[in-house]
Amino acid sequence: MFELENERTELLEQIEELIQRKRYAQLRDMLLPLEAADIASICADLDEERLPLVFRLLPKELAAEVFVELDSDEQEMLIRGFSNTELKEVLDELYLDDTVDIVEEMPANVVKRILKHSDPETRKSINEILKYPDDSAGSIMTTEFVDLRETMTVEDALKRIRRTGPDKETINICYVIDDRRHLIGLLSIRTLLLAEDDDIIGDIMERNFIAVQTLDDQEAVARALSKYDFLALPVVDTEERLVGIVTVDDAMDVLQEEVTEDIEKMAAILPSDKPYLKTSTLETYKARIPWLLLLMISATFTGQIISSFEDALAAATILTAYIPMLMDTGGNCGSQASVTVIRGISLNEIEFSDIFRVIWKEIRVAVVCGATLAAANFVKLMLVDRLLFHNAAMTIPVAAVICCTMVCTVLCAKLVGCSLPLLAKKIGFDPAVMASPFITTIVDALSLLIYFRFATLLLGI
Amino acid sequence: MFELENERTELLEQIEELIQRKRYAQLRDMLLPLEAADIASICADLDEERLPLVFRLLPKELAAEVFVELDSDEQEMLIRGFSNTELKEVLDELYLDDTVDIVEEMPANVVKRILKHSDPETRKSINEILKYPDDSAGSIMTTEFVDLRETMTVEDALKRIRRTGPDKETINICYVIDDRRHLIGLLSIRTLLLAEDDDIIGDIMERNFIAVQTLDDQEAVARALSKYDFLALPVVDTEERLVGIVTVDDAMDVLQEEVTEDIEKMAAILPSDKPYLKTSTLETYKARIPWLLLLMISATFTGQIISSFEDALAAATILTAYIPMLMDTGGNCGSQASVTVIRGISLNEIEFSDIFRVIWKEIRVAVVCGATLAAANFVKLMLVDRLLFHNAAMTIPVAAVICCTMVCTVLCAKLVGCSLPLLAKKIGFDPAVMASPFITTIVDALSLLIYFRFATLLLGI
Repeated sequence: MFELENERTELLEQIEELIQRKRYAQLRDMLLPLEAADIASICADLDEERLPLVFRLLPKELAAEVFVELDSDEQEMLIRGFSNTELKEVLDELYLDDTVDIVEEMPANVVKRILKHSDPETRKSINEILKYPDDSAGSIMTTEFVDLRETMTVEDALKRIRRTGPDKETINICYVIDDRRHLIGLLSIRTLLLAEDDDIIGDIMERNFIAVQTLDDQEAVARALSKYDFLALPVVDTEERLVGIVTVDDAMDVLQEEVTEDIEKMAAILPSDKPYLKTSTLETYKARIPWLLLLMISATFTGQIISSFEDALAAATILTAYIPMLMDTGGNCGSQASVTVIRGISLNEIEFSDIFRVIWKEIRVAVVCGATLAAANFVKLMLVDRLLFHNAAMTIPVAAVICCTMVCTVLCAKLVGCSLPLLAKKIGFDPAVMASPFITTIVDALSLLIYFRFATLLLGI
Repeated sequence: MFELENERTELLEQIEELIQRKRYAQLRDMLLPLEAADIASICADLDEERLPLVFRLLPKELAAEVFVELDSDEQEMLIRGFSNTELKEVLDELYLDDTVDIVEEMPANVVKRILKHSDPETRKSINEILKYPDDSAGSIMTTEFVDLRETMTVEDALKRIRRTGPDKETINICYVIDDRRHLIGLLSIRTLLLAEDDDIIGDIMERNFIAVQTLDDQEAVARALSKYDFLALPVVDTEERLVGIVTVDDAMDVLQEEVTEDIEKMAAILPSDKPYLKTSTLETYKARIPWLLLLMISATFTGQIISSFEDALAAATILTAYIPMLMDTGGNCGSQASVTVIRGISLNEIEFSDIFRVIWKEIRVAVVCGATLAAANFVKLMLVDRLLFHNAAMTIPVAAVICCTMVCTVLCAKLVGCSLPLLAKKIGFDPAVMASPFITTIVDALSLLIYFRFATLLLGI
């Protein structure tokens, strides 16, 4: 796997050569030992017209696995090229949740064709799942799970698993339902295997279990799977009937997507669900420009503050040179605090009720940070700017203005940085938006106001 | 589960009351239906002296599960309070990788006691795993897996699983080894269950598998688990002998920690492995101050640039007011590009070899973003600053200086932002460090140089 990244160019050349020399059997033998995800990533680098050829060489089951891993553009191209029989074959091999993922990305006419060639039961399930809102547990669940009855013996259960198992997404956890499909318990394949053949399911199943609702947020569901170290979570409808399961592999994908979204929001980008190199210039532009415009407009207020203190700056021009340093340090302090708190919120480590503990902690951190930075600054101003560069304008009062501003700016920045995400969360906004760029804009204005206040006080201008 | 967050205060009060009234049986019944992770999180909120009491009420197996989920402080307190028999009982119930995690966090005298009361085989395994470097696959693996032989029948294999299964971390995937413990294949419990009793393991096992080395990076291992949707990955030593497995639950934890680390680095914080509210002021200070100091010192160069253009600023004081807006926008553009690229690198979507594609893409995005921002700015400068506020100093040439600077700054910022993380990766540095704060400092200086260059050119000062 890790070797693959390096061997890939070589592999691609070999494939290209084998295709040109029409050595298809050899090509097939070369692909077979690879993992589906790796074959898909190789397919992505092939010429478009090669893809159907390579795809058709693969055995049915592997072909379906590869198909799932392809990008939606490539999937669409393949589907458009498929004969009806081929389409049906691939669809029959797919797990239901993967089919739903594919259907969600396809244009309407392709969806129609997919639904037409799915068997009626699958079609019904697909339509069911499509009804759930994006980002809900229902939208990522699969309906292919093993269901057992309380009255079965272990032997019955194992027989049932042997019979229906091949079509199930997982057999590692089995779900026990009653006549009205209410979920009443679950048990792992391990419990089943370690039990005696004539044990009764109702006696050995786990009756204390955690289930999620179809409309629960997919991120919360994924976090629960990770928190409790489960391999799957049952999904029930409002009447507590079992309708599907969410498996750990899907949960990992959700967590990964949500993290990317959070990171994008923290960097003032509207989240997108495509990989960077697959987005067009226009899409990237659209994701970035709204926040840039908004933040640019807010930053003009900072400019207004400078303008309104033009006289003070004219009286002590040396002050201008330290504006960037004060603004940048304030911004950095603020984003340290906000990013820490945002991550804490998304990991459920910090709740709104912790706000006073958070603020008290940030005050203490800000005081020591501010003092250290101010002290370092004072030494630098005196030794470098005054003694080394003989800057006569750098007097002790000027240095005092800069250092006092530093302490106050750090304090303000940390307070704004730690409290805004929590407040955003409280009023139902996304805390991730309250990250560096947003905080920086606020802190810039604050640091200038503090700076000019100290200048007026200490320099009498 | 989701209800629990709200019910928790109530639950805590009930527990407190039951303890005071010494209703231990009732308390036990209340705790039994809960998940281990939830009991642990409730324990964390109890008074310290209550913890051993509650812990001793739990049945052995659940107690061990709860123990694993506790914070290391609480674990240490419990261990110090345990009798030798109690300690041995808990240790016997733990999975090996959890024991190792606990041992890693404990002070030396506690570790000694733990090792003294583990059985000799476990002690040997713990010592083995402790030898692997932090962040390696070896350090997160468990040695408790099911190993089978090629020549076994399915019936033999199932018997072996039934006999040894209770002590194994997972039985969902079984590993086939030869006489010298070389890994030669693997098969899932599903394959086993769906096979005939007299099938031979060697015939039905999967011979194409992916294994990692003990010294591979834990993040790469976790990403592989997620990429291939595996439930576990085998870990082999340099001689291809199977020494352990990494399971998906541990991989999820690793991914989560690594993301937190990346986010912290992006916000100029040295990564820590404790939750925010558990770190002391001093620890938080130490994690934040190095970058703050470094960035503060670099920001003084920006100040030097302003000083050296003092005359230009004196000739056109209006220019000062637009410095924050230009610097902030540049910083935001840079961090958008850098954060996108950093995330792409850590998801393996972007490689160093993509650098020219990335740069070309950022150039196009920068041109449209820059043009939009400059246009918006020009309109605002003319309509608001000039017409509305009657600022006579805001002439067309001044506006032109600001808008030209905007376009160039955005372009520079995007280029620096997208290329630095890739270059850092190439020379073996951590790309995450090349995020907003670092980029901002560089872009600030660049934007000022561009600003004054245009001012000199267009305003003739």
